[in-house]
Amino acid sequence: MSLLVVGTVAFDSIETPFGKAERIVGGAATYASLAASFLTKPVHMVSVVGSDFPETQLAAFRARGMDTSGILVKEGEDSFFWSGRYHMDMNSRDTLETRLNVLADFDPQIPDSCQNPDFLLLGNLTPAIQHAVMDRIEKRPRLVVLDTMNFWMTTALEDLKRTFPRIDVLTINEEEARMLSNEYSLVKAAKSILEMGPKYLIIKKGEHGALLFNKHEVFYAPALPLEDVFDPTGAGDTFAGGFIGYLAKSRDISFESMKRALIYGSAMASFCVERFGIERLENLSREDLDARLQLFIDLVQFDIALD
Amino acid sequence: MSLLVVGTVAFDSIETPFGKAERIVGGAATYASLAASFLTKPVHMVSVVGSDFPETQLAAFRARGMDTSGILVKEGEDSFFWSGRYHMDMNSRDTLETRLNVLADFDPQIPDSCQNPDFLLLGNLTPAIQHAVMDRIEKRPRLVVLDTMNFWMTTALEDLKRTFPRIDVLTINEEEARMLSNEYSLVKAAKSILEMGPKYLIIKKGEHGALLFNKHEVFYAPALPLEDVFDPTGAGDTFAGGFIGYLAKSRDISFESMKRALIYGSAMASFCVERFGIERLENLSREDLDARLQLFIDLVQFDIALD
Repeated sequence: MSLLVVGTVAFDSIETPFGKAERIVGGAATYASLAASFLTKPVHMVSVVGSDFPETQLAAFRARGMDTSGILVKEGEDSFFWSGRYHMDMNSRDTLETRLNVLADFDPQIPDSCQNPDFLLLGNLTPAIQHAVMDRIEKRPRLVVLDTMNFWMTTALEDLKRTFPRIDVLTINEEEARMLSNEYSLVKAAKSILEMGPKYLIIKKGEHGALLFNKHEVFYAPALPLEDVFDPTGAGDTFAGGFIGYLAKSRDISFESMKRALIYGSAMASFCVERFGIERLENLSREDLDARLQLFIDLVQFDIALD
Repeated sequence: MSLLVVGTVAFDSIETPFGKAERIVGGAATYASLAASFLTKPVHMVSVVGSDFPETQLAAFRARGMDTSGILVKEGEDSFFWSGRYHMDMNSRDTLETRLNVLADFDPQIPDSCQNPDFLLLGNLTPAIQHAVMDRIEKRPRLVVLDTMNFWMTTALEDLKRTFPRIDVLTINEEEARMLSNEYSLVKAAKSILEMGPKYLIIKKGEHGALLFNKHEVFYAPALPLEDVFDPTGAGDTFAGGFIGYLAKSRDISFESMKRALIYGSAMASFCVERFGIERLENLSREDLDARLQLFIDLVQFDIALD
């Protein structure tokens, strides 16, 4: 089924304890769409870049079944740029520089070709932009996933909260769940956040995996223990793209299907962190993915028979 | 099959953000034996207490099938005492006071009644005492599990390392695994530690669950997301007791059986933290445990069919 991904397409400069990468292609919509396009087609992208963004990269996206007609190219302007440095634990990072550039006045337009997406992923952007996208889509998608971050909880909390009754799945990290709910226990935090409107909540715990909650159920997907985490940039977006990509492919949005989707998302994210940027995602085979899914099965499946 | 647990039987004073408990019964051997006795009998205990330790508590242990004949009562001396304060995250704590008392010159004697245990759990004690116990047991048990901590890695590292080729399963936490191996990645840390001698390594990650490694396989048991963690004291020992207790009951020490044992240990630990001290473990029914095991199954089981 059709999927629309709205978010940043950008350049990142990244330093980790294992190396440096200068001005590589990044952005939430890039990672999420790449992951999703591996599982389902078409993936429509809505974003904005400057004329510094290589047309060859947009062509590479199209070659993977990603529709780039919703990516506005602003002549004479520069693309969004982020640079950061990761600490040894790879869970914490310092932002060295953020240049909004074309993102500063991003006003997302939905091309006719993606007016009726079955699935919608709203990447981390200002809540006002996330509202605008939902306002501008004619028919409510079957499933809306929204990603956000702590910054909007301090600067645009009311706007953000108004998105919650409009969406199905909210994805945030542990710290953000605690901040949003004022609860330390993630179970209590989830209860409180689900009362605010979203039907499902995914709490991302980085190397410790992710939790999926609805009002009555909880599911836990581990992160794969890896020998080397090379670059965590984009792992959360890759996870979200794998999650919604699997749902769009399976056409099944039951809780059971979401469990599988969470494992697909975790598997995709485990590839993402193995190289800088999108390199590993661009060179992924179905055999790679199946082998990785088998590792997840081996990692957590056990056989306890209860009466 | 018979199980011998060697470790502390003690008093703890505990402060958490949710309350205080003064001089309650604790100690690694207490928690581990209680958990194990729920699954297998007999559980022999080897420890030392002072005459301040209530005979009624020892009688309560015996009533649960725990053999206390290996607990030496030193007249006129005081039992080991620990007091600590937990931080809000419940993963970090400050030790306020440690009084070794009878533990200072603990020289474990193995009574005839537990000379040939099939399973042996060596709780966190000086490596010298752990060696002494292994030296004094006539026949090598089928499985030896050893728990230790960072303190012995700085004060008695060589003694500690000499235990590794003598044991089957080593249990330590994340920080200790990194310290012992000088590796940040837990996968690399596990490889390095398994080279030192133990056949299996369990890395405890507190609220993030636990990992079981051998040289070729890895299994991950989640911790149950809980509404309230009331007091984490003894959770690691309860986990170890549930783990070895399940193995002793099942008489099966294959990796598949160890996976189930890890889930039993995690389930037991999830009860432990619901009340101060041993209260919840003392009031546990088989129905409680089965219901909790079902929660673990629901939490992580998913259905992905690969070709």
